[in-house]
Amino acid sequence: MKVGIIGATGYGGLELIRLLHRHTEISSIDLFTSSDAGTPFSHKYSHLLNIYDMPLHRIEIEYLAKLDVLFTSTPSGVTSRLLPPIIGKGPRIIDLSGDYRLTADEYRDWYGKEPAPETALDKAVYGLTEWNRDAIKESKLIANPGCYPTAVLLSLLPAVKNGLIDSSQLIIDAKSGVSGAGNQPNQMTHFSETNESLSIYKVNRHQHIPEIERGLSAFAGGTRPITFSTHLVPMTRGILSAAYAPLADGVTEKQLQECYQDIYQNEAFVRLIPPGPKFGTNQVYGSNYCDLQLHVDQRTNRVTIVSVIDNLVKGAAGQAVQNMNVQFGIEESVGLDLVPSFI
Amino acid sequence: MKVGIIGATGYGGLELIRLLHRHTEISSIDLFTSSDAGTPFSHKYSHLLNIYDMPLHRIEIEYLAKLDVLFTSTPSGVTSRLLPPIIGKGPRIIDLSGDYRLTADEYRDWYGKEPAPETALDKAVYGLTEWNRDAIKESKLIANPGCYPTAVLLSLLPAVKNGLIDSSQLIIDAKSGVSGAGNQPNQMTHFSETNESLSIYKVNRHQHIPEIERGLSAFAGGTRPITFSTHLVPMTRGILSAAYAPLADGVTEKQLQECYQDIYQNEAFVRLIPPGPKFGTNQVYGSNYCDLQLHVDQRTNRVTIVSVIDNLVKGAAGQAVQNMNVQFGIEESVGLDLVPSFI
Amino acid sequence: MKVGIIGATGYGGLELIRLLHRHTEISSIDLFTSSDAGTPFSHKYSHLLNIYDMPLHRIEIEYLAKLDVLFTSTPSGVTSRLLPPIIGKGPRIIDLSGDYRLTADEYRDWYGKEPAPETALDKAVYGLTEWNRDAIKESKLIANPGCYPTAVLLSLLPAVKNGLIDSSQLIIDAKSGVSGAGNQPNQMTHFSETNESLSIYKVNRHQHIPEIERGLSAFAGGTRPITFSTHLVPMTRGILSAAYAPLADGVTEKQLQECYQDIYQNEAFVRLIPPGPKFGTNQVYGSNYCDLQLHVDQRTNRVTIVSVIDNLVKGAAGQAVQNMNVQFGIEESVGLDLVPSFI
Amino acid sequence: MKVGIIGATGYGGLELIRLLHRHTEISSIDLFTSSDAGTPFSHKYSHLLNIYDMPLHRIEIEYLAKLDVLFTSTPSGVTSRLLPPIIGKGPRIIDLSGDYRLTADEYRDWYGKEPAPETALDKAVYGLTEWNRDAIKESKLIANPGCYPTAVLLSLLPAVKNGLIDSSQLIIDAKSGVSGAGNQPNQMTHFSETNESLSIYKVNRHQHIPEIERGLSAFAGGTRPITFSTHLVPMTRGILSAAYAPLADGVTEKQLQECYQDIYQNEAFVRLIPPGPKFGTNQVYGSNYCDLQLHVDQRTNRVTIVSVIDNLVKGAAGQAVQNMNVQFGIEESVGLDLVPSFI
Repeated sequence: MKVGIIGATGYGGLELIRLLHRHTEISSIDLFTSSDAGTPFSHKYSHLLNIYDMPLHRIEIEYLAKLDVLFTSTPSGVTSRLLPPIIGKGPRIIDLSGDYRLTADEYRDWYGKEPAPETALDKAVYGLTEWNRDAIKESKLIANPGCYPTAVLLSLLPAVKNGLIDSSQLIIDAKSGVSGAGNQPNQMTHFSETNESLSIYKVNRHQHIPEIERGLSAFAGGTRPITFSTHLVPMTRGILSAAYAPLADGVTEKQLQECYQDIYQNEAFVRLIPPGPKFGTNQVYGSNYCDLQLHVDQRTNRVTIVSVIDNLVKGAAGQAVQNMNVQFGIEESVGLDLVPSFI
Repeated sequence: MKVGIIGATGYGGLELIRLLHRHTEISSIDLFTSSDAGTPFSHKYSHLLNIYDMPLHRIEIEYLAKLDVLFTSTPSGVTSRLLPPIIGKGPRIIDLSGDYRLTADEYRDWYGKEPAPETALDKAVYGLTEWNRDAIKESKLIANPGCYPTAVLLSLLPAVKNGLIDSSQLIIDAKSGVSGAGNQPNQMTHFSETNESLSIYKVNRHQHIPEIERGLSAFAGGTRPITFSTHLVPMTRGILSAAYAPLADGVTEKQLQECYQDIYQNEAFVRLIPPGPKFGTNQVYGSNYCDLQLHVDQRTNRVTIVSVIDNLVKGAAGQAVQNMNVQFGIEESVGLDLVPSFI
Repeated sequence: MKVGIIGATGYGGLELIRLLHRHTEISSIDLFTSSDAGTPFSHKYSHLLNIYDMPLHRIEIEYLAKLDVLFTSTPSGVTSRLLPPIIGKGPRIIDLSGDYRLTADEYRDWYGKEPAPETALDKAVYGLTEWNRDAIKESKLIANPGCYPTAVLLSLLPAVKNGLIDSSQLIIDAKSGVSGAGNQPNQMTHFSETNESLSIYKVNRHQHIPEIERGLSAFAGGTRPITFSTHLVPMTRGILSAAYAPLADGVTEKQLQECYQDIYQNEAFVRLIPPGPKFGTNQVYGSNYCDLQLHVDQRTNRVTIVSVIDNLVKGAAGQAVQNMNVQFGIEESVGLDLVPSFI
Repeated sequence: MKVGIIGATGYGGLELIRLLHRHTEISSIDLFTSSDAGTPFSHKYSHLLNIYDMPLHRIEIEYLAKLDVLFTSTPSGVTSRLLPPIIGKGPRIIDLSGDYRLTADEYRDWYGKEPAPETALDKAVYGLTEWNRDAIKESKLIANPGCYPTAVLLSLLPAVKNGLIDSSQLIIDAKSGVSGAGNQPNQMTHFSETNESLSIYKVNRHQHIPEIERGLSAFAGGTRPITFSTHLVPMTRGILSAAYAPLADGVTEKQLQECYQDIYQNEAFVRLIPPGPKFGTNQVYGSNYCDLQLHVDQRTNRVTIVSVIDNLVKGAAGQAVQNMNVQFGIEESVGLDLVPSFI
C-alpha cells in the first residue's frame, strides 16, 4: 500500500512514521507539507537520518489521489478546508485532527472555528476501533478519536451501555503528558513552567467534552452531560483517566468485572488489569494498549474506573494505523505489536 | 524558644530545619535520633554543612522536657508509643505523623497498627490552623494534619459548612509529588519506575480518608463518606486536589465565590485565585500557601473546587510552624514569609 | 533602601523579587517595564498574589534616578543602550545581563550585537563577589557574572592562581537546568523535546567562554583558551561544572585541598564538600551556595574539580543581592540565609 | 531459534523481552529465575499481560543446554559462578553483566569480587559488534559491552586507531539516565533525591574504566589511562558521552570527519550527525542507534567527540540481539528496526 501523511512534522505525524516504518503491508510513505517542499525530512528531524531521508512533497490533489491511504495530522481548522475536494475520490482518509468528530454546531461552539461543510461531515465515521469496526471498514473518511475520548470511552462504554452505573452522575478527571499539546512552543508547554508542576486547565471547557458525550450517546445510549477536567502532568507521554459514578442499584463488583471481561476479552489492545500497588501510564508506554482497572467502593457504592493509554499511540497514531488495518482487512495488530517499554 | 525535632532525617524533619533556621523567635534547634546519636547532622546531609553541624542527640525524656516545643516527624506507629509519657509534662508537642489524628478504632482500621492510648488521643487537637485556632492555642499536643487532608479540607470546608454543595456526593481526585512517600527507597518510589509515569494508588483505601471525613464533620457538619483517589505524579513536591460536587439548589457562582472570599480574606496563607489558562502546584512551590480555584459548570450544575499546596510546607512542616506560632502568640507568618519559587 | 528592577518578568527578575522580599534593609521594590505599565504584577504571575500586587512602572530616567539600587535583568542587547545615560547619576546599578562583562570587541564577536559604549564599559566592575569585593564596594555599575562563569571561576581560580594545575590544558564540561534559557518559549525549551533527554549545545561557541577566560586572567593570571561545553539537563534549576586539568608537577592532593580551604574558609557561600557517594545540584537548590569537590586521580595525575550552584541564585539573583550587600556595607548573607531545599 | 533469558526481571532482561518479542527468527523465549519458579511473568510485570504470561523456569543445566541462545542479564558476581559449567556445552551465551569483560586481576580490582575462572574468561569474546564481528561470529560466550564503554568506544576508536588525536590526554565526561542503575531501589535512585538534580558519582572509580581502556587498546592500540567521570541525569534512559582530546599535529576537521564516515558508512546503527542547535539522547531513544558528532575547536586545537545511545538498547539488550544476529548469520537489523521515538 502507498500511504501519505499530511502534517508529518507534528507529533502525531512523527509517531505515524515510527509505526508505519515497520508495517509489513506498506510499500511507500510520502510526506506532504504546505511550506517546506523539497527539504529532506531528516534535515528537520535528525533522529530520522538514514530512516526517512526523502524530501517533503508539496500538497497536490492529483498526487494525493494516487495514494491508498492518506493520514492527516494537522492542527484543528486545516482539514475542514483541505479535505472536502478529495473525500471519496481516491485514498481512504484517516484524519487525526478534531475537524470531523463533531456536528457543525458543536464544532463551532467548542472549537470556535468554522466547521467543515455538512456534506463532508456526513461522510465521516468515528474511528473508535473497538466500538465501530463495521462502519470503519466501509468508510472513506475516518475521524480518528481524540486522545482523551479514547481513554475515557473505552473505560466507560461497557458500564454505561449495560446500565451498570448511573451515567447521569459521571465525573471524569483526566490527566495527560505534555506531548498532547503538540510541537508548537508556548508558555503552557515551556519546560521551566511545566516541569515539577501539576496543573489543571480548561476545566469544563475542553473541546473533547462534546466528543466524549457523542461517543457515550452513539455507542451506549448515554444522554447526560459529563463533568470533565484535564490536567497537565510533567511527563511527555501518557494519559490516565479516572472516572467516578454511582453503581446502579444492586450491581455487584463481580457483575461489573464480568461485563468488561466479556466485552474486551478478544480485543488485542484492551486489557483489564487486576488490582496491584500502583497502576500507571508506564504500563502502556510506547504501545497501542488501553489498560483498564475497576475499583468498587463498598463504603460509598461508587465505582472508580481507571484507564491508561499512550496518548500518541492508542490516543492518536496507533489507533489510526489500527483503523487502516480494519479498512484493508489486515490483522489489526500488524505494525502495532509493540511491547510497552515500562521503563 | 528552644525547639527539638524527633525524626529530623525524614523529609518532614528536613523541611522543619529549613523553616525554623530562619525563624526569628528560635534560639536553638536540637535534633534527636534513635540510632545515630553523636553523628554531626551535616555528615548525613551535606547540604546542611555550615548550617547545621551539631551532633544528633539521643532521645531522653529529661532532655526533651526542657524544650519549649517538640516536633515529631516520624513514620506512623512511632509517636503512639513514644509520646504518652511526656504529653502535658513539658514542651508543646506538634506531631506530624498520623498517630494522633484519628480515633483508636479508625486508626486500627486504616493504619493497621495499634493506636496510641485513649488518654493520649483525647489530649490531641487537630492542627488545621485556619479552622481550629482557639483549640490549637491552648493545646499541649497538636495532631498536625496530613498533606492530602490539608489541601482537601481547606478547599471544601467553606462550601460544606454553608450548605452550598451537596456534600453527600463528594468525589475527590487528589495527586501528589513523590516526596509525600518519604525518604525510604522502595519500588513505588524507584526513579526509573516513577519518572515519566502517572500512577493511581490506594483507590478508596488511603489512610487520609477517615481524617478528611473527620475534618468535614468537625468543622462543617459533613457526615457522608467521600470517594477519594490518590495519584503519584513524577515530580518531587506539590499536591493538587480536584473535588467535585453538585451545587445545592439555587446556589450561584457568585454566592460561592463570596463565601470563600469572606472566610479566607484575612488569612495569610489561603488565596483564592481567579481563573487563568492554567493553575498548578508551582504557584505555591516552597511556600506555605494553599491556593484555591472554583469552577462552576452551568451545563451540569456541578462545581469543581481545586486546591494546590506544597505538601512538605503547608502539608507538613509549614503548617506545623504556623501552629507553633499560634500556640505562642507569635504572628502566624513569622518564619513562613516564603515567596513561592514558581520556577 | 529603595530598589528597582527592570526585567522583573524574566526568571532573574522573579528570583530577585523572591530574595529581596525578605531582605530586611529594603523599604520598597519598584518594578519597571517597557510594555505593560499599569498592570498589577500579580496579574501576570499569580504566584505573587498578595505578595506583590503593585502595578508595573514605565521606565523613566527621573524616577530611576531616585532609587538606591537598580537591578537590570534583561536579555542581552538591552542595557547596553538603556543604561549609559544613568550610569553614575543616581542608583547603584547591578546588571544581570551579559552587556557589561566583556570588552567591546569580545562582545561583538561572541554576542553578535553592538556593544555598550566604551565609556560605559569602562565603568563596569565584574561582580564575582568572593574575588572582587574591593572594586565592587566602590562601583556604581556592576556586571553581575553569568551563571556558568560563576560556577566555573569559583571552582578554578584557587588552583590556577596558585599554579597547582596546568591551566593551559583546561577542559570544562558544564551542565545546566533549563531555566538558564529564560522564559521565552522556543523549540530548545519545549517540554516534550527537552524532557527525558540530555543535550549538548553551543560546543566551543558559548558566549560565556570569553567571560570565563577574562575571569581566569583577571583574578588568577590564566592566559590560555579553554575548552568549554554546555549541556541542557531535563530539570529546571542547577548547574554542575566538571573541570579537568593535569596537576602541576609535584602537587599533592593535600596541597590542593588546603589551598581551597585557605581561600574559602571564611566565605559564607562557598563550601568544600568531602567525597561521598554522590554530589549534585540538589545540594544547593534554592540557595546562594556554591559547593565544590576536588577529585585527584593518581592513575592519570589529573584533577577533576566539580562545582554546583543554583543558576538562578548564586548564578544570578543571589549573587546580585550579595553584591548589593557588599556595596552598602550590609552583612553579605542578609536576605540570602536560605537553607538549600535538597528535596 | 529457542532463546532463554536469565535475569528477566531486571531492566536489561525486560528490554530483551521487548526486542526479542518481535524478532522474526525466534520461536520461543524461556525466562529463568533463581527464586520465583512457577510464577507467571506477567504477575510480576503487568505491562506484559497477554504478551508474556508464561511461568518462570527454575535454572536447570539440562534445560539450558537445549537452548540455541542464552542471554544472562544479572548483577555482577552471578554469571562468574553460574556459567562456567555450561560454556561451550550448548547454547551460544551472551552475558550482559560485567563478569566476562576484564582480566581476572582487573575484575578483582575494580569490581571487588572474585572473578570467573581464567579458563572461562579465556573463552569470552568482547561483543562490541562494529569492531569485533569476526570473533563474535565464532564465539560461544560473548561479553556484551557495558553501556558507557559502548558509547565511549564507538565514539573514540576511529580517531585513536588512525592517530588523529593525542590519546594520551583523553578526558571523557559521561552522563547517564537512572535506568543504568538497575531495578533495585536505593538512596541513589530514590525519586525525590534524584529528580531535579544532576549528580556526579564514582569519579575516576567507575568499573567501566578498565573496560574502556581495554577496548581502546584492543581495537585501536591506545595504551594510556583515561580520565573518566560519570553523572546521573534525572531521566530514565539515555547516555551522552563527551570526550575531549587535542588533535594530532596537522590533522584537519575534514580529515577527522572523513575518517569517521569511512569507518561507519556501512553500519546500520552508527550515524554521524551534522552540527545543529542541539544534539541529545532523545535522538536515539528506544532504538539501537549510536549517534556521533564531532566538534573541532580552532581556538584550542582540540576536538570534542560526542556520542548518544539508549543505554538499555545499544548499551545493553539491543547490542546483545545484534550480536546474536551476527552469531547466527541473520541480518544485523532483524528485530532492531526501531525508529527512535524522539518524543
